Amino acid sequence: MNANNLPEIRKALEQIKPYVPGKPIEEVERELGIKDVIKMASNENPLGPSPKAMEALQRALTKLNFYPDGASYYLRQAIAEHNGVDAGQVLVGNGSDEIIKMIAETFINPGDQAVIAKPTFSEYDFAVTLMGGESRLVDCVDFRHDLKGMLKAITPQTKIVFICNPNNPTGTIVSKTQIQEFMSQLPEGVLVVFDEAYYEYVDDPAYVSGLEFVRQGLKNVIVLRTFSKIYGLSGLRVGYGLAHPELIQWINRAREPFNVNLLGQIGARAALADQEFLAESRAQNAAGKAFLYNCFEEMGLKYWLTQTNFIWVQIKTDSQSVFQKLLREGVIIRTGDIFGFPDFIRVTIGTEEQNKGFITALKKVLETVLV
Amino acid sequence: MNANNLPEIRKALEQIKPYVPGKPIEEVERELGIKDVIKMASNENPLGPSPKAMEALQRALTKLNFYPDGASYYLRQAIAEHNGVDAGQVLVGNGSDEIIKMIAETFINPGDQAVIAKPTFSEYDFAVTLMGGESRLVDCVDFRHDLKGMLKAITPQTKIVFICNPNNPTGTIVSKTQIQEFMSQLPEGVLVVFDEAYYEYVDDPAYVSGLEFVRQGLKNVIVLRTFSKIYGLSGLRVGYGLAHPELIQWINRAREPFNVNLLGQIGARAALADQEFLAESRAQNAAGKAFLYNCFEEMGLKYWLTQTNFIWVQIKTDSQSVFQKLLREGVIIRTGDIFGFPDFIRVTIGTEEQNKGFITALKKVLETVLV
Repeated sequence: MNANNLPEIRKALEQIKPYVPGKPIEEVERELGIKDVIKMASNENPLGPSPKAMEALQRALTKLNFYPDGASYYLRQAIAEHNGVDAGQVLVGNGSDEIIKMIAETFINPGDQAVIAKPTFSEYDFAVTLMGGESRLVDCVDFRHDLKGMLKAITPQTKIVFICNPNNPTGTIVSKTQIQEFMSQLPEGVLVVFDEAYYEYVDDPAYVSGLEFVRQGLKNVIVLRTFSKIYGLSGLRVGYGLAHPELIQWINRAREPFNVNLLGQIGARAALADQEFLAESRAQNAAGKAFLYNCFEEMGLKYWLTQTNFIWVQIKTDSQSVFQKLLREGVIIRTGDIFGFPDFIRVTIGTEEQNKGFITALKKVLETVLV
Repeated sequence: MNANNLPEIRKALEQIKPYVPGKPIEEVERELGIKDVIKMASNENPLGPSPKAMEALQRALTKLNFYPDGASYYLRQAIAEHNGVDAGQVLVGNGSDEIIKMIAETFINPGDQAVIAKPTFSEYDFAVTLMGGESRLVDCVDFRHDLKGMLKAITPQTKIVFICNPNNPTGTIVSKTQIQEFMSQLPEGVLVVFDEAYYEYVDDPAYVSGLEFVRQGLKNVIVLRTFSKIYGLSGLRVGYGLAHPELIQWINRAREPFNVNLLGQIGARAALADQEFLAESRAQNAAGKAFLYNCFEEMGLKYWLTQTNFIWVQIKTDSQSVFQKLLREGVIIRTGDIFGFPDFIRVTIGTEEQNKGFITALKKVLETVLV
């Protein structure tokens, strides 16, 4: 008889929710007998990828038998130039997700703590938990990060504070003054992660990027950005971190040698150069935002002002049931229950046509619910 | 003054070599004033990606603004069918590299051990070290895994044994009888990872895939395969694991939600369906192998019979200096020093033209070295 038992599983893994595989949209469409579903669930750019990125990718297809450049040399150069930092201050990941995991792998030992807002992006808690750390969740105040409360939640065990700014799923920001006050009171030996996945959509003058602190030379700050949102390249999985070279070097030790795929590097570089596409995306998003604000007001639905490409809306009824009904109308949105708010939805701002389609469907669904 | 100090770095990170970014080939070509460098260093398929994969990828470029399917549903179905297992027995990663890391994240606590051959692929030691574990390296015997020695190296702290079969960088295999004996003597509670990245190149009838043990229902075995070698898709980063569903589910908890990019999923599926391209690649590799064996014999160089698309050759002189000189001749190979064997090189079997070019360059370089 061969041995058959698994080694003991790490305790940390038991704290992580078992993975339940979902079905791709195509399967859902087939099963429900619907088609051309509008996806307004994942804050993707509805204009598609930048045309210049697609051109560059097409030319690279014949080179896919080669490993990507493990150093992401050209992409890091381009990102550095775009952000006015040195290439040694740039780290590229298989999406920001991977960078978040690598940050936890660099700092979190069992028993260490991280301070995280609630609600916010789920990957921070995942990464900290995976490494055996403990997430201390601090409730948002009116769906904004409560930076004073987060400061108070810091203990001698705290290694990291995550600030998602603008915040997902709420679309809100914390202001420059709030951040400056927070930074001035932060104890030594705590890393601040500014996740700025939606940075390019922000138009509030009260906003400040964490990059300001990196530029000041602080070692304990890292800023995360991504090509998955306004740059329209979610499918390629490219995110990046900007920080002091010393911090970048430490995190690099946790990095696998070929973590960013070849097309990701090429597509991201081309997208970065296509600032025209960015401007167009921003303008369309602003128009869609105004339209949706109006509709929600007409419908008497409370929503939060957003600095992103999605809106957090209180629908005052069970979001799972609304989700299922919207799906049958051919629209996918994100339910609030996964963030702990079962009567909220998060909807991505789409094209004009998609926004109209969504509102028509939502009105129909909410009428049946309320009847 | 803002706080500036980093939190304490995890001790495990200090055991990992600092990352030194390399330059891409294009930069090297520019600096040396050479062009059309032949890369025979990373065991890539010299025939390129499967043409069917490229076609499928081209059609998918417009969809890159969407996140990939987090469950890799269709790809897992295709892999399962190809290997005669259930989709629940398949895990897909951002290259096998990521799966190796996830395996360590599932099982390795500080102080745990893994048994690893020397020389072999470096990622096993990296992943174990990252999680605070200890690698016990067991010298190969005539460049084959010493499975008896590896059994003896197992202690109560051992969680994982890595068997790279065929082995990288030596091209050798361990036989069915050796593996069966090893498996029958393995103590309970130890996971065996069969890394079969070069599986599709094997033609020795004495070989057995670890998949046989997965099919027998053993829970403590996982087989790793990849689309980076014969399938010609290194650039897309897709590897997979085959194991008991219970093991797959545990490892899945360490997985980030969108770890495999959209084009990786599509390209891998199309490549898997293109078995004609595989047959062609295998035939060309066999011809190149015979040619190179002949040349090495004529040159009086000792080499090891390979079951892969690369050959491990003893050049009896410093491989770093040979590497530098070959580079100036426009050929890149891998030096043996990084595996602990400074007078060896590992050369990927190329196209007929590349193999001839490499031999001409090697003869020239070795003559200057020996003069």
